[in-house]
Amino acid sequence: MTDFVHRRQFTIAWSHCDPAGIAFNSRFFEFFDWGTWMLFEAALGVKPPDLAAAFGIVGLPLVDAGATFMAPARFGDVVDQTSRVSDFRRSSFDVEHRLAIRGEVAVEGRETRVWAGRDPADPSRMKAKAIPEDVIARFRPQ
Amino acid sequence: MTDFVHRRQFTIAWSHCDPAGIAFNSRFFEFFDWGTWMLFEAALGVKPPDLAAAFGIVGLPLVDAGATFMAPARFGDVVDQTSRVSDFRRSSFDVEHRLAIRGEVAVEGRETRVWAGRDPADPSRMKAKAIPEDVIARFRPQ
Amino acid sequence: MTDFVHRRQFTIAWSHCDPAGIAFNSRFFEFFDWGTWMLFEAALGVKPPDLAAAFGIVGLPLVDAGATFMAPARFGDVVDQTSRVSDFRRSSFDVEHRLAIRGEVAVEGRETRVWAGRDPADPSRMKAKAIPEDVIARFRPQ
Amino acid sequence: MTDFVHRRQFTIAWSHCDPAGIAFNSRFFEFFDWGTWMLFEAALGVKPPDLAAAFGIVGLPLVDAGATFMAPARFGDVVDQTSRVSDFRRSSFDVEHRLAIRGEVAVEGRETRVWAGRDPADPSRMKAKAIPEDVIARFRPQ
Repeated sequence: MTDFVHRRQFTIAWSHCDPAGIAFNSRFFEFFDWGTWMLFEAALGVKPPDLAAAFGIVGLPLVDAGATFMAPARFGDVVDQTSRVSDFRRSSFDVEHRLAIRGEVAVEGRETRVWAGRDPADPSRMKAKAIPEDVIARFRPQ
Repeated sequence: MTDFVHRRQFTIAWSHCDPAGIAFNSRFFEFFDWGTWMLFEAALGVKPPDLAAAFGIVGLPLVDAGATFMAPARFGDVVDQTSRVSDFRRSSFDVEHRLAIRGEVAVEGRETRVWAGRDPADPSRMKAKAIPEDVIARFRPQ
Repeated sequence: MTDFVHRRQFTIAWSHCDPAGIAFNSRFFEFFDWGTWMLFEAALGVKPPDLAAAFGIVGLPLVDAGATFMAPARFGDVVDQTSRVSDFRRSSFDVEHRLAIRGEVAVEGRETRVWAGRDPADPSRMKAKAIPEDVIARFRPQ
Repeated sequence: MTDFVHRRQFTIAWSHCDPAGIAFNSRFFEFFDWGTWMLFEAALGVKPPDLAAAFGIVGLPLVDAGATFMAPARFGDVVDQTSRVSDFRRSSFDVEHRLAIRGEVAVEGRETRVWAGRDPADPSRMKAKAIPEDVIARFRPQ
């Protein structure tokens, strides 16, 4: 577990909610995605649209995502989201997102992403690259 | 009014609907967008992802959009959408979308789009181009 | 034009953007909707999920919406949104939304909504009600 | 593994895609949700908005969801989705979704859902109920 954590707070909007009056499941994957972008901005000091150019990559494509829904998030609920990298491997990493409402965890999310550059053999495709050590170091406790 | 009309039918999904149990307004603008792509495919015989290359444009950027909501569209409702170009101008055009449920018009949509190429002075920007006569002809009654 | 204005600031996320790299048009109608909820919370001092019960209504159904797109909103752009009621009528009202990026207006939105209660003749339907004078007064300059 | 499979085909729309030109991950969870509704309609012969009333439940709330992304889904790609219940337990079940493009699996999805009624002790809450045997039987090979 790395120790760098990004926290943000947001409110469940009417447009997030389904006829059951709760945030529809796909919305959480948007919340996770945005949490990851902001986590990387906070850790690396690079704005999301500049991340790829700053590190010579194409992006951080998602290869696996999941969520466990423990309690509903209703219209107007204030959500406290914490996002952290739980594991760095050679060229991929896992991000954990925890969304709490009134102090109770409502949703846990997990993403596996790849540090991806262009494939030298075919520039229209992406290829996993080794994550630089100094990138990983920014997520570690000081 | 040009006479080429594209018709499609689809069903209102759970994920389209808000806590009032009806399709949330922003979803209709997705339905309009898809209607326009399919209208152009039907009229011009070019698949949506190939449209730009086939006509030497960058795309059909939207400059104005609107909708009038006459009746709600509920989860499970079958929608009959008709889309047509209502006006072609030199480099822009209007698309009208009509969404009917059980034979009654529920939503009317309108889009104004531009026939846009790259700006020769600044390739990162778009610039309106004249719509080719043979494109317009494909939307006219035979 | 009433004088009560709600301002909020947010950032264009990756998930808002389409293959042209700009926020997809339907997303703006979500931004408008949320602006209206927050405008009413600010003016009336009632949280969005409590609005209907506090005023004996079912909601503020949208009957017309539109947007004019003057400039693209790109991934990472910081948006300053101002929302205000531009006209109150007996039982409906218009909301104007202005979204500016780096000081320039990028998108203008407009919504027409109804102050709606249950139809006494058919509780499954909504019916326009007169907007209370003290509601309107909260949007007026002091 | 139960043997009842629902198949549907759809096309990746412009509005589904992100700046990388591929369908954004959260969209797949909408595709999974719709696949589940249609699978139940096909197996049980009940339209989605009538499902809850027909079986005396409140709904099929999602408690866990996940996806593995093997290949990108691009604008205009035709997707063949198959959905099936992979496991029925006393009051919950798993749904598997497989999305193939040009014959290759691009995305695999998994959902765990609950057969949920109202909690007799608190009608504002849901409570897991035993899935009727005749419901399960409809998903079994004949």
